[in-house]
Amino acid sequence: MKLYTYFRSSAAYRVRIALNLKGLAYDAVPVHLLRGGGEQRQAAYRAVNPAALVPALVDGDCTLTQSLAIIEYLEETHPFMPLLPQDAAGRARVRALALTVAADTHPLTNLRVLQHLTGAMGLAEEVKMDWYRHWLREGMAVLEAHLARDGDTGRFCHGDTPTIADCCLVPQVFNAQRFEVDLAPYPTVARIHAACADIPAFQAAHPSAQPDAE
Amino acid sequence: MKLYTYFRSSAAYRVRIALNLKGLAYDAVPVHLLRGGGEQRQAAYRAVNPAALVPALVDGDCTLTQSLAIIEYLEETHPFMPLLPQDAAGRARVRALALTVAADTHPLTNLRVLQHLTGAMGLAEEVKMDWYRHWLREGMAVLEAHLARDGDTGRFCHGDTPTIADCCLVPQVFNAQRFEVDLAPYPTVARIHAACADIPAFQAAHPSAQPDAE
Repeated sequence: MKLYTYFRSSAAYRVRIALNLKGLAYDAVPVHLLRGGGEQRQAAYRAVNPAALVPALVDGDCTLTQSLAIIEYLEETHPFMPLLPQDAAGRARVRALALTVAADTHPLTNLRVLQHLTGAMGLAEEVKMDWYRHWLREGMAVLEAHLARDGDTGRFCHGDTPTIADCCLVPQVFNAQRFEVDLAPYPTVARIHAACADIPAFQAAHPSAQPDAE
Repeated sequence: MKLYTYFRSSAAYRVRIALNLKGLAYDAVPVHLLRGGGEQRQAAYRAVNPAALVPALVDGDCTLTQSLAIIEYLEETHPFMPLLPQDAAGRARVRALALTVAADTHPLTNLRVLQHLTGAMGLAEEVKMDWYRHWLREGMAVLEAHLARDGDTGRFCHGDTPTIADCCLVPQVFNAQRFEVDLAPYPTVARIHAACADIPAFQAAHPSAQPDAE
């Protein structure tokens, strides 16, 4: 398998964690999101993914996009080390937690949106950072509310083994730390992040451990 | 089953389509997103969904949130009238199309974001509408690129029966039409939307057919 990735991309980071948890080897193809106006916007990469976003995963003659769709595919094609619980209600809970990050938080704060705020909209750097921290905190607060109230929360987001929800939580916390968002209001999120950080599969997926890290 | 819904919510609309396609009866519980500062922000609804977003689905003692997680749950618990293809690659394609709407497009243009632009950020109504149309067009262009190039596209997004991708496409096109975004650059999207509009399950899920329609 071949993964189009960027070391600091949250969405690529999720897929790297899932691949590592399942012990699946892959070739990393770095796509530099800032160099030359963004390699993801060049025709060569748009032919892979018309959305001009990373990641994309190539498996045989299939090219897959969207991090959660890729992880569900890995789950179906490599069911060992399951990243979803067995019961439908548990699966729905894990998917909802994952989407709280992957749909309600990260798309508001990713690179193309930040570039649009200061580019086309001409807003100040400071306004952009307020935007970033606002939506990041909103998302963290929802995650915390779910995780703190539900009996299904364990060492990880759902029970005592990592799931797709943890694959999403960890990159989001990385972003929070990078932009100095205080994690004190989100103690369950922070505790789960720390538990994940102990696991080699998560460590190997960390941006700083990537071949294209700067 | 009980569905917390708002007639014009894209995300609730997706779930209504899925319920109808599977022939599942449900009780609609309207949550008015504008009245009194938004019923979704009141404590009673936050106890159902801490994210203060619709939809939420109650099935027995399970309360489910996030439209795509809810539809996957319906697919697992009521597998007749499948909304995902059988093969892993096809399922990944359908999920990626769905996420192009549900993660990359709609969260940027939903009510809370539009209210943030003109509220906390103090931007003009016109700037808000430019924002709305920009991200809606970006999302439509990606959908169109995928649908126009892939041999798997049929009468619907994937083959000749509706899938989760169509459950997402139709509400997004409804939004585009409501805000007068020209669909001419997205002929495949428009063609599939028209095919869906012929189906009673889609018609019954339309905002204008809801008990809380205004």
